[in-house]
Amino acid sequence: MDFIEQTWTDLQAIRKRQPLIHNITNFVVMNETANVILAVGASPVMAHALEEVEEMVGFAGALVLNIGTLWPGLVEACVVAGKRANALGVPVVFDPVGAGATTLRTRAVERILGEVRVSVLRGNASEVLSAAGMPAKIRGVDSLASEAETGAAAAAIARKLGVTVAMTGKTDVITNGGVTYYCQNGHALLQAVTGTGCSATAVVGCFLAVQPDPVAAAAEALGYYGLCGELAAAGAVGPGSFEVALRDHLYSLTRDDLARGLKVAAAGKTV
Amino acid sequence: MDFIEQTWTDLQAIRKRQPLIHNITNFVVMNETANVILAVGASPVMAHALEEVEEMVGFAGALVLNIGTLWPGLVEACVVAGKRANALGVPVVFDPVGAGATTLRTRAVERILGEVRVSVLRGNASEVLSAAGMPAKIRGVDSLASEAETGAAAAAIARKLGVTVAMTGKTDVITNGGVTYYCQNGHALLQAVTGTGCSATAVVGCFLAVQPDPVAAAAEALGYYGLCGELAAAGAVGPGSFEVALRDHLYSLTRDDLARGLKVAAAGKTV
Amino acid sequence: MDFIEQTWTDLQAIRKRQPLIHNITNFVVMNETANVILAVGASPVMAHALEEVEEMVGFAGALVLNIGTLWPGLVEACVVAGKRANALGVPVVFDPVGAGATTLRTRAVERILGEVRVSVLRGNASEVLSAAGMPAKIRGVDSLASEAETGAAAAAIARKLGVTVAMTGKTDVITNGGVTYYCQNGHALLQAVTGTGCSATAVVGCFLAVQPDPVAAAAEALGYYGLCGELAAAGAVGPGSFEVALRDHLYSLTRDDLARGLKVAAAGKTV
Repeated sequence: MDFIEQTWTDLQAIRKRQPLIHNITNFVVMNETANVILAVGASPVMAHALEEVEEMVGFAGALVLNIGTLWPGLVEACVVAGKRANALGVPVVFDPVGAGATTLRTRAVERILGEVRVSVLRGNASEVLSAAGMPAKIRGVDSLASEAETGAAAAAIARKLGVTVAMTGKTDVITNGGVTYYCQNGHALLQAVTGTGCSATAVVGCFLAVQPDPVAAAAEALGYYGLCGELAAAGAVGPGSFEVALRDHLYSLTRDDLARGLKVAAAGKTV
Repeated sequence: MDFIEQTWTDLQAIRKRQPLIHNITNFVVMNETANVILAVGASPVMAHALEEVEEMVGFAGALVLNIGTLWPGLVEACVVAGKRANALGVPVVFDPVGAGATTLRTRAVERILGEVRVSVLRGNASEVLSAAGMPAKIRGVDSLASEAETGAAAAAIARKLGVTVAMTGKTDVITNGGVTYYCQNGHALLQAVTGTGCSATAVVGCFLAVQPDPVAAAAEALGYYGLCGELAAAGAVGPGSFEVALRDHLYSLTRDDLARGLKVAAAGKTV
Repeated sequence: MDFIEQTWTDLQAIRKRQPLIHNITNFVVMNETANVILAVGASPVMAHALEEVEEMVGFAGALVLNIGTLWPGLVEACVVAGKRANALGVPVVFDPVGAGATTLRTRAVERILGEVRVSVLRGNASEVLSAAGMPAKIRGVDSLASEAETGAAAAAIARKLGVTVAMTGKTDVITNGGVTYYCQNGHALLQAVTGTGCSATAVVGCFLAVQPDPVAAAAEALGYYGLCGELAAAGAVGPGSFEVALRDHLYSLTRDDLARGLKVAAAGKTV
């Protein structure tokens, strides 16, 4: 099956099965994340109390961890839920928001990656580099390096950490260290709305619930999400109307939309 | 006065008096709940610090309790505020989000119902059954039972718990064990937006602040809210534009809209 | 440079430099505040963990403190971040949400104003009076007093507290005790959306990051924000569509819009 067909098949599976997506995430984006997951077709639950996260993740098709508005108890909840998800075979996607920005964040990321087997690590270049213990303060990493160099760096991180890396930027790079996808979908207005990176992570969670191969799930998710961003931008006059339209398109995207608009390639070739 | 006239009278009273609605609610829906309460015409305040909930509820026309993103301190705040509301005669509406899903939630619901006199319990069938200590894992409870059977079950729970039950689903059932209303208003897109159940609970709170009979207040609130959902869906292309339009309609709904669209009946007869 | 030119120059500086605005704010408005800051053109970060607020504020162009959903730990985080901001020369804007409503809030405001040097205090008349230790329970303070009397009262508070007061209402009064601005921009629909006062405070934070004179920064911010509210209202049918359009206009406001619509005067004269 080609990539477009596989994406459509997985999107239909989400819409039909409505898998529960368990989110331990930040206070800024909780509402938008839940709404994006509903728009994709899955069922969100936001639960972070240490007393119930292990029970809740038992019902989940995927676990989404996000340290946006970090506090110490959150890391504990992430680790406890993540270990239980590992024991149950529930895939985990992790968004290391602001990794490298403060010591608290850098340590939180180290602890979660050290104690939880993460399927997909989704962040921007700076966050992914920091998560891998590399210097992240390189301004303009997207523009300086070529696509191939960025892909090679992400693949090395994927192998080092034993995860699929989904590094978003002008071009998204999704790699498990062996297979590497490049995704050109997306729109500048996504930068003008808060939590669109967190939403992308949650959409990866939705695809992980139906697609067993993490690198395929992440590539499909980012292609679909970015394409909806492009379609939303076409009718928007600013970030307010863009955010509304983005949810509408996530909800109603068709197979034809995917066939016409998906711009995802593997190893430099269109899939 | 007939039901439509009573609903219009109470809606006008909310818009004129702008009662303060004190919410102890979850982090996912705080913003949307506050915005819905403003759109209805009342004044929201979100305050959950144990140090101020008793003082705050003293200014309120109704207290809304919701355990969506549960943590242990939240239950304590609900109980303290609820007892104070009881002492002051401030009506309480309670939304047992996820009752039955985890042990933490089931115990929280038991404690709140045990220590606070709740006027209206608003939830879906699974949550209401769980709150009453009954097996809730019956899939498709809405479709299997007839409307009359569902109504009888809800009435039995209302009598057992000594509350008005507002059980939302394809048909909403609102009953104090004696009087039972059936509401057919609503739209499928309400399921594609997070927190619409929580918003319905908050709208019940708005009506409780002006209508002393809890079963009438809850039936009016759910009819009005569901009707606004239908009107919003008429012009929406997906859940994003639907949510925007829902707030617009809550704000601007007219007496003619109510007269044309309200589908609420008591004991099988149109009221 | 006249006021309109200065406002346009500062808005362009925000859009070009994208200063980081560090927010310690409430759970109701976190998402909307972040989105408003992005729409203005700056970069929001929401971080309130005691373990990282000092480090985070070191990267910031301004610090925004807001006690909307108050809990005791929040006040400590505000004080610690505020002191560090003072040491680094990062300007601080403070929104004393609900000052005077409960004892917890009144004490929180006293402590923050006592321990942090605040550049701008942004609140409604009741909150500003309470923050100054004056009786705030005067209903209709906006309508009873003349503009000149309101301005004189605000100026006295500014001198007493050693801050710039930005008191919003039908007419906004912005004063450092010497220079006083009156702003007529705004629209009634701003009252029908939650957190618009908090958003105004955050916009003041954006302007403080580029404009060193606090009274000018606050006057420019409130004029720009209120004007965007007027433009948004022109095409809105209710609070839902209004909120969407408000973000669109914050994002796209032009120099011509400012020239045509800004209604800000100093000491009774148009600047």
